[in-house]
Amino acid sequence: MQKYNIIVGQSGGPTAVINCSLYGVIKQGLESEEIDKVYGMVNGIEGFLRGDVVDLGEIFADPEKLELLRQTPSAFLGSCRYKLPPIDETEVYEEMFEKFGEYNIGAFLYIGGNDSMDTAGKLSAYAKRHGSDVRFLGVPKTIDNDLVGTDHTPGYGSAAKYIASTIRDISVDAGVYGQKSVTIVEIMGRHAGWLCAASALARNKNVHNPMLIYLPETPFHMDKFINSVRECLNKQNNVVVCVSEGIRDKEGRLICEYRGKAETDSFGHKKLTGAAKLLEEAVMSELPGIKCRSIEFSLIQRSSSVLASGRDKEEAEAVGRFAVKSVIAGESHQMVCMERAEGEEYKINYVLKDVADIGNKEKMIPSWWITGEGTDVTSEFIDYVKPLIEGECEIRYKDGMPEYVYRQ
Amino acid sequence: MQKYNIIVGQSGGPTAVINCSLYGVIKQGLESEEIDKVYGMVNGIEGFLRGDVVDLGEIFADPEKLELLRQTPSAFLGSCRYKLPPIDETEVYEEMFEKFGEYNIGAFLYIGGNDSMDTAGKLSAYAKRHGSDVRFLGVPKTIDNDLVGTDHTPGYGSAAKYIASTIRDISVDAGVYGQKSVTIVEIMGRHAGWLCAASALARNKNVHNPMLIYLPETPFHMDKFINSVRECLNKQNNVVVCVSEGIRDKEGRLICEYRGKAETDSFGHKKLTGAAKLLEEAVMSELPGIKCRSIEFSLIQRSSSVLASGRDKEEAEAVGRFAVKSVIAGESHQMVCMERAEGEEYKINYVLKDVADIGNKEKMIPSWWITGEGTDVTSEFIDYVKPLIEGECEIRYKDGMPEYVYRQ
Repeated sequence: MQKYNIIVGQSGGPTAVINCSLYGVIKQGLESEEIDKVYGMVNGIEGFLRGDVVDLGEIFADPEKLELLRQTPSAFLGSCRYKLPPIDETEVYEEMFEKFGEYNIGAFLYIGGNDSMDTAGKLSAYAKRHGSDVRFLGVPKTIDNDLVGTDHTPGYGSAAKYIASTIRDISVDAGVYGQKSVTIVEIMGRHAGWLCAASALARNKNVHNPMLIYLPETPFHMDKFINSVRECLNKQNNVVVCVSEGIRDKEGRLICEYRGKAETDSFGHKKLTGAAKLLEEAVMSELPGIKCRSIEFSLIQRSSSVLASGRDKEEAEAVGRFAVKSVIAGESHQMVCMERAEGEEYKINYVLKDVADIGNKEKMIPSWWITGEGTDVTSEFIDYVKPLIEGECEIRYKDGMPEYVYRQ
Repeated sequence: MQKYNIIVGQSGGPTAVINCSLYGVIKQGLESEEIDKVYGMVNGIEGFLRGDVVDLGEIFADPEKLELLRQTPSAFLGSCRYKLPPIDETEVYEEMFEKFGEYNIGAFLYIGGNDSMDTAGKLSAYAKRHGSDVRFLGVPKTIDNDLVGTDHTPGYGSAAKYIASTIRDISVDAGVYGQKSVTIVEIMGRHAGWLCAASALARNKNVHNPMLIYLPETPFHMDKFINSVRECLNKQNNVVVCVSEGIRDKEGRLICEYRGKAETDSFGHKKLTGAAKLLEEAVMSELPGIKCRSIEFSLIQRSSSVLASGRDKEEAEAVGRFAVKSVIAGESHQMVCMERAEGEEYKINYVLKDVADIGNKEKMIPSWWITGEGTDVTSEFIDYVKPLIEGECEIRYKDGMPEYVYRQ
């Protein structure tokens, strides 16, 4: 049998479990007799174009080192936000496919979000048009949970677990003085509020926070917000409010832009930050005498290894393994998707869907999972998200800190 | 034998392990034959004056519930920042000592920082002057590590562990795109930089961040800061800078006040926040084209239960137990202090010191532990702090989140 090599890359913003998917690809690749080497591209296709390729079998010759990859946050291979041109602009594609030939690449796996699925889709469309037999498969990843075609995305469950646990911690801390106070927490989520909505899991029979949840799916209205906070303070001294970074007013204007324009990255995404700070200032001005503070979870919500969800880690590995099995079976131009089985017990089936139906789209929280006033989520949403944060993994510590593995 | 009751309170800002000290007091109190009931004051002396007192033996009749107290962040009894008047203003003291009589209180234990030691000191001075035999003992607690007379304070090790681990997480995350970037992290510490200095533990042979550490002990100079960041960017693309919230310029003006006055609490402490944001804006203006973001650890650094230090939890319990044994032995007007034994192996001895020598003072990082430029710490500091973050405790989870115990 003629063996071939596969190459894997990581793209877009990291998650706590993107390296579990890489782990799954490496393990399955090295265990498969059809596959010789598992290569990694450093900094995604951007690095690949520079020839920055590593032999992952060699890097992880020591099995102990490979195990540490499962608890290492961020993208081990580095990431990029490089956007491929349309496939009619052939120059960069010719360069890439020549490199595929050099490395005897039979399959290309890209772990990422909707921008990455755009990349996988363009490459496989080019391959089809030019008769290349290199296969292209997308492995889903994003804390934002905004990929269509899949029940949820690996990375979401861990970020959700971090958010829910940390909101609970903040709520018990903020209530310590017994005085009236408002704590506004800003959570990632540009267009979709999945992460912010997960803060609802912080509640239990003793913790009634967050009392208000603001999502990008519902237009934000400053006066209504102040009124709602005032009402909450009448019910409870310690009010925690969770807001998505991407909340907008009914004209579609970002709240975080009320003071000035946000910067943009190379995909044209705005760098959103400051919504919570703005709301903090509004509360301090409209509700004088009330202690108010704002907190941004920033990078921590996607990089906490100790609060990663055990189930999320397992599923992230499983999508990586399933992707390798799929390319061996000859599949291309697909993304691995997760389908939740019907019934009481939580169970996921792994399937493939056409990557062209996934790239450049965004899945929002359905309106029927958001309550009337737009400041809370329904029990159906809770039933959906609850299983995703379950399970804890044992972490290996060294000198009092989680032990990681590094490329450099 | 005539049994008596003891009462315990928690005061000042919470820590991840302040409830471990409460656990130690409850366990030791209930195990001691001299002691009948262990009462808790809700919201410190402020609540006590209102008559808000609970029977902790009753609340924690279920041993399982008591065990959960050890992993519950924030102050279970609630906290306060109530400052007692001088002891010549007898009214409030008369009220308190009358209440001590009502509850048959033989000893009063106050878990807190330097403000709380001020409270314990005044109460015991009043008792001495008026011939009361109620004993008063301070149990140290503060993430700030700024209490004099003790090698370190319970609460510091856990916050240090959170800070070191999270700075490492942020560093691996921020380096993912390979582009030049500056991440500025703001860490608690009003006058003393112990917490910010602990970020140095994030480094290992692969992680060289934080590259710069700014402490309140060294005057901050904006031009020098920009130059240092520029030099760091020449060495490494991914630069993480840690700053104490309380950094000041050489005139003593807070950096976070460059834009406006900070608010103050009832002890006259300013609400400090925004130093990192201001430095972010300075970097963006002086080093155009460099990606820059700021992150504040805010309440999370003192309330994370999953990153609490195992050693810190043990020591926090031990100071609580030692305090109970000490009041039984007749001690008063003292604080439990930790002395580090000489020699290679880390070992702590618990001793008592006069509370009057501790209250209202602040211990800074000695200048010989800060390097010449004022942007780093020495290996002697690392040797000091390293043992404090060691050890992990098993956490009990429920529904995917750490399980806590609540007063209400």
